Amino acid sequence: MVFNFSAGPSTLPRTIVEEVRDELLDYADTGMSLIEMSHRGLEYRDVHEEAISLARLVFGVPDDFSILFLQGGATLQFSMVPMNLLREGLSGGYVLSGAWSVKAFSDAKIYGEAYEAWDGSPVNYSRMPKDFELNVKKGTRYLHVTSNETIHGVQMFEWPDVGVPLIADMSSDIVSRPIPWNLFDLVYGGVQKNLGPAGAAIVFVRNEVFELENREIGRYLRYDTHASENSLYNTPPMFTVWLIGKMFRWIMGQGGLSAIEATARAKASRIYDVLDASDGFYTCPVELGCRSLMNVIFSLPSEELTARFLTFCESSDLVGLKGHRSVGGVRASIYNAMPMEGVDTLVDAMVKFKIENE
Amino acid sequence: MVFNFSAGPSTLPRTIVEEVRDELLDYADTGMSLIEMSHRGLEYRDVHEEAISLARLVFGVPDDFSILFLQGGATLQFSMVPMNLLREGLSGGYVLSGAWSVKAFSDAKIYGEAYEAWDGSPVNYSRMPKDFELNVKKGTRYLHVTSNETIHGVQMFEWPDVGVPLIADMSSDIVSRPIPWNLFDLVYGGVQKNLGPAGAAIVFVRNEVFELENREIGRYLRYDTHASENSLYNTPPMFTVWLIGKMFRWIMGQGGLSAIEATARAKASRIYDVLDASDGFYTCPVELGCRSLMNVIFSLPSEELTARFLTFCESSDLVGLKGHRSVGGVRASIYNAMPMEGVDTLVDAMVKFKIENE
Repeated sequence: MVFNFSAGPSTLPRTIVEEVRDELLDYADTGMSLIEMSHRGLEYRDVHEEAISLARLVFGVPDDFSILFLQGGATLQFSMVPMNLLREGLSGGYVLSGAWSVKAFSDAKIYGEAYEAWDGSPVNYSRMPKDFELNVKKGTRYLHVTSNETIHGVQMFEWPDVGVPLIADMSSDIVSRPIPWNLFDLVYGGVQKNLGPAGAAIVFVRNEVFELENREIGRYLRYDTHASENSLYNTPPMFTVWLIGKMFRWIMGQGGLSAIEATARAKASRIYDVLDASDGFYTCPVELGCRSLMNVIFSLPSEELTARFLTFCESSDLVGLKGHRSVGGVRASIYNAMPMEGVDTLVDAMVKFKIENE
Repeated sequence: MVFNFSAGPSTLPRTIVEEVRDELLDYADTGMSLIEMSHRGLEYRDVHEEAISLARLVFGVPDDFSILFLQGGATLQFSMVPMNLLREGLSGGYVLSGAWSVKAFSDAKIYGEAYEAWDGSPVNYSRMPKDFELNVKKGTRYLHVTSNETIHGVQMFEWPDVGVPLIADMSSDIVSRPIPWNLFDLVYGGVQKNLGPAGAAIVFVRNEVFELENREIGRYLRYDTHASENSLYNTPPMFTVWLIGKMFRWIMGQGGLSAIEATARAKASRIYDVLDASDGFYTCPVELGCRSLMNVIFSLPSEELTARFLTFCESSDLVGLKGHRSVGGVRASIYNAMPMEGVDTLVDAMVKFKIENE
């Protein structure tokens, strides 16, 4: 048993992996594994519909939103969003807050008029914008934001309120706090960080979107295709959907989104507190108020010390802490399934390593 | 334990499901499940690369083809193929041999000039075309075929040789026989029938395709994106890829594709033989020479008898035999993992039911 701080795919609650193991060979006394069943059979339908119902319940999703399970991850959504929503005279504003939003913007430009509503590169993506800094043009169909940037460790805590619907890539913090639905037309995220194993993206889309949706695109790429068939237009990623349902039940068992949010704050605070009390031994490049509760990134005084720290952590069964290759340093991803015990073990290691190496 | 004749997702070798169960909690003594690991970590990389290497080995794929694991199933390929390959002056010919090819054609028309090279609807999709029946226009970039139609039970045993590269949707017979690569520019298929659980499509694409590929499409939708990153551009469907690797090893253990093909013929023959000897009690609408080795479809003299036959089968632990809702009747899907024992049990049930109900 190790503590896995990987940025995603990432740790899952042990009880869920055990449950899957126990149910894998013979699902509900059918004599088959769920992964061998027709996706149109009763057993899988129940699993599928329960996952969607629990998503609606946990997030308090209004009735005028559809909840979809799609494939291709957030990466395919980078194309699907502009492809479905943009057209002549309607543009998309993009908040460039890190590597992921830059990718989303790059695809959007192919499918319509997309523009930078804010560019965080001059400040090395160390913070999110204030509303007054946002350049929102006339004719904007949506403002696209990336709520948490896994590589740069920066998170958006105040949603822009600038008179246009928001679209958010919430891949890395999707089940970490409630969502004020009135501000959004569409929310998407890969599930492989907070909500299950790799293989699906969850998409929440306001039904009004379908009315104006571009129809000159292939079937798989249209939101209405999946909405009208309850994400069973084609074979869904059944294993992943099965585990998403289990994750939603686990989240409810934890007390729901508000409890999850409080725990996320508590976990992140322990690390940031040690960091802030380290007299500059551990430094975080992110501005106060924008520090991610999901991905805590920090550096040590030298690359050599960073490497030694990572080795030291591995020897304490703390794995997956290496920062993204583009920024270096250390990254502790502490998604929902990371227990407080894991955070405490990391914090102890940080304190100990500092004493021994200062 | 039942025999599952579902058209897909479908039965998997028992040994594989057992192996996954045993490896699920702690992969290779890492203290983590494989589904919790970073897709960029060494353990998953090995799994991923092994699956690709085995695919190349089993199929004898030439070096100038890339092998990709994508999401969105064959359904997304219906869009990706024309989106990447068609352009002004280059068209795609489509062989309409059943429900699936009709869907592929419908998406293709959105992305370029696509035309019917043959239409099987006048003969109720009861056979595949002969070469001389194919209408291949000048400027054709590719001829698209669906090698096996799961709903209509018709399979292509002779590949069209008409002077243009073939593109094939082999979703339902992809690992059932060798592929003559010289005829093809691209072969794709969902894996959830012959090659694993739901969640991925395997795509074999000739590298020349990238040279002329359309670049004005989103990153996820370009073949070269995935080829240049060995299908690790974004998070892959790790669980499914893991099981695909196991399936390829199982196929090699069976003696490879030629052995698999012989077994498929033997299994299908047993059912067709009983059917042909039934004096019209069981009838198959597909022409001799085009009868699918994967999906054996047949009818009984009345809908009432069909319903009773299906109930009779269920009581003998033979499940998933109901024909597709659009055509009715019975459909026995006998993909690679269906053991001969299952086929024998079905055949016994057919004989017994006929005697009792004639």
